[in-house]
Amino acid sequence: MIDYPARLAAARRRMAENQVGLMFLVPGANLFYLTGLARQEPHPTDTNRWGDWAAGAYLGLERGPILVVPKLGAGYFEAEVAGKPWFADLRILSESEDPAEVLRDLLSSFDLRGGRVALDDHAWAQTALAFRRSLPEGEFLLASEIIAPLRMIKEEAELSLMRRAGQITAEAFERALARLRPGVTELEMNGEVDYQLRRLGADYPSFVTDVSFTGLPGGAGSPLQRSRRQLAPGDSVTFDIGCVCQGYCSDFGRSAFAGDPPAEYLHIHETVLNAQRAAMAAMVAGQISGAGVNRIARAIIEEDGYGAFFRHRLGHGIGVTVHEPPWLDVVDETLLQANMTFTVEPSIRIPGHFGNRVEDVVVVGGTGGVPLYDTGRQLYIV
Amino acid sequence: MIDYPARLAAARRRMAENQVGLMFLVPGANLFYLTGLARQEPHPTDTNRWGDWAAGAYLGLERGPILVVPKLGAGYFEAEVAGKPWFADLRILSESEDPAEVLRDLLSSFDLRGGRVALDDHAWAQTALAFRRSLPEGEFLLASEIIAPLRMIKEEAELSLMRRAGQITAEAFERALARLRPGVTELEMNGEVDYQLRRLGADYPSFVTDVSFTGLPGGAGSPLQRSRRQLAPGDSVTFDIGCVCQGYCSDFGRSAFAGDPPAEYLHIHETVLNAQRAAMAAMVAGQISGAGVNRIARAIIEEDGYGAFFRHRLGHGIGVTVHEPPWLDVVDETLLQANMTFTVEPSIRIPGHFGNRVEDVVVVGGTGGVPLYDTGRQLYIV
Repeated sequence: MIDYPARLAAARRRMAENQVGLMFLVPGANLFYLTGLARQEPHPTDTNRWGDWAAGAYLGLERGPILVVPKLGAGYFEAEVAGKPWFADLRILSESEDPAEVLRDLLSSFDLRGGRVALDDHAWAQTALAFRRSLPEGEFLLASEIIAPLRMIKEEAELSLMRRAGQITAEAFERALARLRPGVTELEMNGEVDYQLRRLGADYPSFVTDVSFTGLPGGAGSPLQRSRRQLAPGDSVTFDIGCVCQGYCSDFGRSAFAGDPPAEYLHIHETVLNAQRAAMAAMVAGQISGAGVNRIARAIIEEDGYGAFFRHRLGHGIGVTVHEPPWLDVVDETLLQANMTFTVEPSIRIPGHFGNRVEDVVVVGGTGGVPLYDTGRQLYIV
Repeated sequence: MIDYPARLAAARRRMAENQVGLMFLVPGANLFYLTGLARQEPHPTDTNRWGDWAAGAYLGLERGPILVVPKLGAGYFEAEVAGKPWFADLRILSESEDPAEVLRDLLSSFDLRGGRVALDDHAWAQTALAFRRSLPEGEFLLASEIIAPLRMIKEEAELSLMRRAGQITAEAFERALARLRPGVTELEMNGEVDYQLRRLGADYPSFVTDVSFTGLPGGAGSPLQRSRRQLAPGDSVTFDIGCVCQGYCSDFGRSAFAGDPPAEYLHIHETVLNAQRAAMAAMVAGQISGAGVNRIARAIIEEDGYGAFFRHRLGHGIGVTVHEPPWLDVVDETLLQANMTFTVEPSIRIPGHFGNRVEDVVVVGGTGGVPLYDTGRQLYIV
């Protein structure tokens, strides 16, 4: 079980250390992390309810959290807050109120201790501008400065939820594989993965599902309308899929081939596996940075002559969101600590020719990284 | 065909009228509207690429738009900008650069004419705070103040795209209906709608698909894991579904019943249809406000004794996003104008007992509102 009052207390300690009198969190990842308030599946295009821009939790050093929500859709939040006595209040904002006035009243009810206010990084610019208007002398910083260090180190209960999300994802992959036959389209494979994830108990996908043929960019990076191209013998297939389960994320990658793979493809699959193994072995707590791990995996692919085709960072932190700090990337010199969790996802992709990726979630330990759950990494032949 | 240079010119005229020297737009609805830069399907949990918070288009009165994108995933934007000569530049932000420095350099390259800067409403708070740090004396406003009035009135080319999105949605509904039989689950029905939408050519759903039994709240408002409850004789079913097609949205609602509907249910279906008809008839350009239309539909449901069970606004503007101003709601006194488009979506919902909704997209005209596409509004019996 996750001890939310303890998390709120830890956040308040960090607020006090950083001279922050108030933190504002939208109903998203940070608020879920601190209070267990489950996120709703986000809508793919902008939705706008009256008062949406002021909606979120207002957390003071002693006062709050006060959750403000629009009247439209308030039922969801009433049910969520009901079992969570660590919420001080639920304030429903009706269409007869001016949200700017509600914000002013709320802000004046907190003791801001000098005025530093932490805003959720991904709150709206509209919200940030309104806070500024209400507190023209206020000093603002990002909520991630308070919360990201707490989120980086996972508790056992979190690892257990992430393992469950990973197992669901691996099972959805196995089920989808049964439909991977010459003639199937990318569209159908993506739909099958999404359906199986939900059928197995996922809340929703953690990112846009991406099953791609022949190394062409897929999912969110592709033309929007999923390809109707049919799988043909000689095509490689990469799976990059994940889900959210009880608020925790998975991210999983495997490769398949239709028919007899050529020697070059078998070779790059081994290279990708070698890069992943070497990275995992190096992920010793206190001994290496994210940039260092990235360097080790990249060197193996570069030595093999495919450096230009490993087009992205080696991995990213993962937890209540699919991409979160720290990063296994050139930009991050954060030293790895025990119970940090990262994706380790080397790939080689030559668009239109072939693609190969293997990806697992790895927990940093005292003698190296350990996969959170272990399933076969072989090349799947169909 | 949509004339994007003309749209950019119209936006710049409004910028000049409002003393705005620079507008910043994220790769979202406003930027798509002004330039045709197609949006990517958004990921359901936070993703973070190096430089993401500075990514977007910087549009001056003469200079720009300059599109800044992270190196990770830049290929998508290179392809999108290639056919659009109205972009002045594409600036790829690499991991070796400090995005804050890139922002400072960019801002200093624009003539800010006194410093007013319009920020996309849904840009990140992180972005707004960084702009403020770079322009401590700057005055900020929301990009919607510039763009929303342009977006409200639809051109023929837009109506045509919205009609196509609507036809795809109506066809996906018909196909999904074929699977609506006792024993099917909400989970399966939602999955079927999503699959059919994409199969018929949708980019992605415009909001979280919601097929619900017996008037229980569904989709994004429900417990996250879709219900495994099976449809039983005597259950009502509501469909609230929509898609994005070539960047334009649909939103569509119909009701069905498993078996012989009781007299009360047949009656409320007629009441909902009456409310929709009366609202549409009243939507005469220049003659009524959004609040006025809402009042007319609500009165019909109230007179029938179900006022407490019509729990939401009558409708919302729709176009490149599913919910956009103006609103058919108590808060909006905007006078309706020709070629505004609204959803008209009366409903009666008694959770656990039954639910009924009918929803169409309606174009405001000189003699009333006209459905953008017309399909049967009967109660579907399965």
